[in-house]
Amino acid sequence: MLVVMQATASAVDIERVCTAISDMGYQPLPMPGAQRTTVGLIGNDRRVDGSHIEALPGVAEIIYVSSPFKQVSREWREANTQVTIAPGVTFGGSDVPVIAGPCSVESEAQIMAAAQLVRAAGAVALRGGAFKPRSSPYSFQGLGKDGLVLLQRAKAETGLAIVTEAMDDEGAHWVAEYADCIQIGARNMQNYSLLKTVGKLRKPILLKRGMAATVQELLLSAEYILAEGNDQVILCERGVRTWDPSSRNMFDLSAIPAVQKLSHLPIIADPSHGTGVRDRVRPMARAAVAAGADGLIIEVHPDPNKALSDGAQSLFPQQFSALMQELVPIANAIGRRMPTLAAR
Amino acid sequence: MLVVMQATASAVDIERVCTAISDMGYQPLPMPGAQRTTVGLIGNDRRVDGSHIEALPGVAEIIYVSSPFKQVSREWREANTQVTIAPGVTFGGSDVPVIAGPCSVESEAQIMAAAQLVRAAGAVALRGGAFKPRSSPYSFQGLGKDGLVLLQRAKAETGLAIVTEAMDDEGAHWVAEYADCIQIGARNMQNYSLLKTVGKLRKPILLKRGMAATVQELLLSAEYILAEGNDQVILCERGVRTWDPSSRNMFDLSAIPAVQKLSHLPIIADPSHGTGVRDRVRPMARAAVAAGADGLIIEVHPDPNKALSDGAQSLFPQQFSALMQELVPIANAIGRRMPTLAAR
Amino acid sequence: MLVVMQATASAVDIERVCTAISDMGYQPLPMPGAQRTTVGLIGNDRRVDGSHIEALPGVAEIIYVSSPFKQVSREWREANTQVTIAPGVTFGGSDVPVIAGPCSVESEAQIMAAAQLVRAAGAVALRGGAFKPRSSPYSFQGLGKDGLVLLQRAKAETGLAIVTEAMDDEGAHWVAEYADCIQIGARNMQNYSLLKTVGKLRKPILLKRGMAATVQELLLSAEYILAEGNDQVILCERGVRTWDPSSRNMFDLSAIPAVQKLSHLPIIADPSHGTGVRDRVRPMARAAVAAGADGLIIEVHPDPNKALSDGAQSLFPQQFSALMQELVPIANAIGRRMPTLAAR
Amino acid sequence: MLVVMQATASAVDIERVCTAISDMGYQPLPMPGAQRTTVGLIGNDRRVDGSHIEALPGVAEIIYVSSPFKQVSREWREANTQVTIAPGVTFGGSDVPVIAGPCSVESEAQIMAAAQLVRAAGAVALRGGAFKPRSSPYSFQGLGKDGLVLLQRAKAETGLAIVTEAMDDEGAHWVAEYADCIQIGARNMQNYSLLKTVGKLRKPILLKRGMAATVQELLLSAEYILAEGNDQVILCERGVRTWDPSSRNMFDLSAIPAVQKLSHLPIIADPSHGTGVRDRVRPMARAAVAAGADGLIIEVHPDPNKALSDGAQSLFPQQFSALMQELVPIANAIGRRMPTLAAR
Repeated sequence: MLVVMQATASAVDIERVCTAISDMGYQPLPMPGAQRTTVGLIGNDRRVDGSHIEALPGVAEIIYVSSPFKQVSREWREANTQVTIAPGVTFGGSDVPVIAGPCSVESEAQIMAAAQLVRAAGAVALRGGAFKPRSSPYSFQGLGKDGLVLLQRAKAETGLAIVTEAMDDEGAHWVAEYADCIQIGARNMQNYSLLKTVGKLRKPILLKRGMAATVQELLLSAEYILAEGNDQVILCERGVRTWDPSSRNMFDLSAIPAVQKLSHLPIIADPSHGTGVRDRVRPMARAAVAAGADGLIIEVHPDPNKALSDGAQSLFPQQFSALMQELVPIANAIGRRMPTLAAR
Repeated sequence: MLVVMQATASAVDIERVCTAISDMGYQPLPMPGAQRTTVGLIGNDRRVDGSHIEALPGVAEIIYVSSPFKQVSREWREANTQVTIAPGVTFGGSDVPVIAGPCSVESEAQIMAAAQLVRAAGAVALRGGAFKPRSSPYSFQGLGKDGLVLLQRAKAETGLAIVTEAMDDEGAHWVAEYADCIQIGARNMQNYSLLKTVGKLRKPILLKRGMAATVQELLLSAEYILAEGNDQVILCERGVRTWDPSSRNMFDLSAIPAVQKLSHLPIIADPSHGTGVRDRVRPMARAAVAAGADGLIIEVHPDPNKALSDGAQSLFPQQFSALMQELVPIANAIGRRMPTLAAR
Repeated sequence: MLVVMQATASAVDIERVCTAISDMGYQPLPMPGAQRTTVGLIGNDRRVDGSHIEALPGVAEIIYVSSPFKQVSREWREANTQVTIAPGVTFGGSDVPVIAGPCSVESEAQIMAAAQLVRAAGAVALRGGAFKPRSSPYSFQGLGKDGLVLLQRAKAETGLAIVTEAMDDEGAHWVAEYADCIQIGARNMQNYSLLKTVGKLRKPILLKRGMAATVQELLLSAEYILAEGNDQVILCERGVRTWDPSSRNMFDLSAIPAVQKLSHLPIIADPSHGTGVRDRVRPMARAAVAAGADGLIIEVHPDPNKALSDGAQSLFPQQFSALMQELVPIANAIGRRMPTLAAR
Repeated sequence: MLVVMQATASAVDIERVCTAISDMGYQPLPMPGAQRTTVGLIGNDRRVDGSHIEALPGVAEIIYVSSPFKQVSREWREANTQVTIAPGVTFGGSDVPVIAGPCSVESEAQIMAAAQLVRAAGAVALRGGAFKPRSSPYSFQGLGKDGLVLLQRAKAETGLAIVTEAMDDEGAHWVAEYADCIQIGARNMQNYSLLKTVGKLRKPILLKRGMAATVQELLLSAEYILAEGNDQVILCERGVRTWDPSSRNMFDLSAIPAVQKLSHLPIIADPSHGTGVRDRVRPMARAAVAAGADGLIIEVHPDPNKALSDGAQSLFPQQFSALMQELVPIANAIGRRMPTLAAR
């Protein structure tokens, strides 16, 4: 921690800051500059809360130089963490697995059709919401536990791994029972009680970036899960709030190299929510792989014109299939591989 | 709902959209323009999900003209809802009650000192976190249930109403038992499971605006609570995400008249989180009252330099007291009143 | 300047940074921490460009502790700068002058009517665009030099000071000849050639904050003007880009205390552009005065329903007049005064 | 244009809106809905300014359905515009030309070394600022006209096309004389006087997106240039303002497909400014090509550690060379080609 003094700070002000640092049990190191003095704090092992020092007379700013995260950081573990959610479906290695399927599970016919078509096109996992967080209480809220049963049936039929969202403690236990990976949605990224709950489960977690979360906040939320003993966490960039009405969200692909530098955890990309517009899903899915994403999650619907939610951003089956073909040479160009499931 | 066609849309494209609208059970009304055609949808009683129409060939854009909210809107109830959290503490009328106190309950001595000083200065309710949502799992997380007991003791001593945060279902039940108003924090504004839980409780709710929530999203989150039968909801502007590093948040005071036009619910302002910098709390608290806020919530600490959290934005006792004096003529200038508790 | 090293940086990495600092002519001061080392740079008198050091192996981050501005800062000049644009119209003292008038000068009848009504209500200066920066090349671009002549006539008739925008060098010279204060609009806040031009003129400048400019960038743009010898600069908060579609801009009133702490220059507020919605102008104008703004600039039109531009945010004459009455007790509550022109 | 009425609007309110539309010379078409009425305006040929209608009693909102742009839109010209800045250097076709070089021209030795190394690696055009827009008036402002002479010398030596920025009218004429393409920087994207000036020149223009410009605003600024008769415009995504301190800007790659859908003009990407961090330039340059960018502009310096500006985001020569190799298979995967200059 560094305490930057105002140019007009007096010797007494600087002394007062040094005393406050000593009182906290650390050693102060004043460093006079031509324009202003900075006081360092020696001996802290992790982030110190210096907000009360910020309040002392003559203090301009507090700067934290220690990283606020611990177990999620590359400094804690240098090699990539590989998260295997089902046999042959590993995130964080050289494979770039694709999770695909509809926004919501709507019916047995719909989810079976979706599962078969995404598997045929090369996806290795199936997405589909049973519990749906909707902005309005009057929108379709998902089939709930019945949706989980249908997802399990789709898995039995196709061999696809299942990824689906949980919105609360009870839901998390249900999802853990029926699925291979528990998704925590953007709106719950800072629902710390839920993060602690899933940190205690022994299931892989897909943690989506919040609507306006910084990369640091995303990593701190992951830290909540690791701190409970679960290091099987896959992060996900899914677009963030934008002031540009031409897009539903702003797809922040540079978060991918940013996270990969700071953390050993895998990070995948969701070009469907990331753009919110079907025409942009295909170019941005390609861009995500070229940027080094450790996987993709894509909305595909057997008949998007009849979808109960997110129809406008769901790919048509043939669009998804064409996209999967395009991704192969791009992955290969950077030394990676698009995995497929063995024939059954 | 209006479907705007591309300038290049063919007659067949327009016909297809009309058919889709008929299939949904509504009546289509095409409206040709010089540049492009718009198709209206007649007969919808509430928001229709037209995302699959957005996907049809020749469609440029879908525009929703129905308001997505119902019970929270002024069209549903024209007069202001008044929320009384304790005798003499009413939000939504001509009073402008002030809730004040420390960020966290730290000890009996601290919370008692805080309660006495804010009451003496003119506050009518006490804030103080027992359950603290912290970005890092390694930061102080609050005293939990013990903190609630201390708050109750402070109430017994001073007569101040108690406002404190709940982060999950279990916490909500505890807070409902010990406090007068349950706060839902910014990070949980879209935790729909928690919103449903507190919607079923018969306690006033203070719902803070999410970090990057639009006014519409804030109102839709309130709608979740009202839809469960609880209309005792106070909204709160507390600053939103900003790209300007000179401020912790951007305090969006114009959300106050914006909400008051759309909804009958009261809205208060939190200049402490709204700015994150002590020096700005006083001018911005004044500004909030002048803008028509229905109340204030302010961080004050008996000794901010020793606060366990948010020290840099907590007011010193004498600053708070001076601010309370300044607010009286401003409230009066717009026909409102700063209430105080009767002497005990 | 401080160079924060990565936790994994080697002694060689640290040594390399020290050498680079020495090569720049400064003295390096390494400060080992428990987690990572920070290297300070001693002896710099103003901001050093350390971007090439950021690139050295083992460097995590560069932190600048010197303020990047000079003549605009309170450290350069402690007392407020007072800018008098005409007799009795001074920004930066205890007065809170109001500049009011239409978005554009449209005709002699319109600007004369506007001038008379704003003067009668208590404004001391007249605004009105002759050169209009419009997003579309096909929108009304203003009357140009003819508009300046009409403004001058309005001044002769009413005694109001004239504030109007210049968009380029030639326009700046014309405005300097006909008006009392040259406005630089938000879109040109970083048009450095224009800033240098008006820095050489001997006229007061009203510099509006750019659409997404930080407080620091606003002050650096003002620094361009002062660096050319013109310290008669009034800053203006006019709302910034927002992701909330409920508002045209987000009115960042906390920029007012933020600027006043960092700089001696006066800062006024523009609630008309700041909100973009007529109903919010009145509460937010009150809020700006309560927050300590050194003046206001407000759009008023004799007949907003017929305005050629910005009709929806222009006040009706009677609304403006009511607002001016409301502002008096608010200004007085914080020890300030709403000035008026002497009767003629 | 559509006028959405409030649910509470009276028949008189609706009639008043219809009259206002008739007064403007158009035909009103009321469309009653279950919840509220919408009034359409028939017969407008281009964007109408309805802001004064927004002000009428009972009006909730004005919605513009006509596109505000004309010559830049795909509806105006369906096929891609190809912009050739020099023989063999064409943007908007199947080629993906790369413009590379240092942030600033610093010396003859530096720019010659830069030109040779970027040409050897496969770039077809040289960038390098002679006129530099810097946030601070005290930063290095470029070599000015001398820099242009050096760029011309580099062209003579290597055959690379020259792209460099102009900041004002006088500079634009100089750049037009010495270079192949005039860059308008982000800070001047809405400097309409400068846009009109370069619209009258017969030189290709590279127009960079403003710091917080929407896609629509970028296209409207291009419209200013086309409206003056110059359709040789290349757009450029260069990152936009972000609230995430982990990045200098947010690189909005989805603007590429968004622009390509709306406009026939080519759009390139600048991953150097787009990310501001050297480590992210390589993955994001690959991502830009995969997303369909019509070209790239990249900062490369012979010795980034000694750069006078932007050192931290400039690639080292060998990094640039490795990147150029990686781009070939990615371009090929989507049917495009990385062009190179013929040997000399």
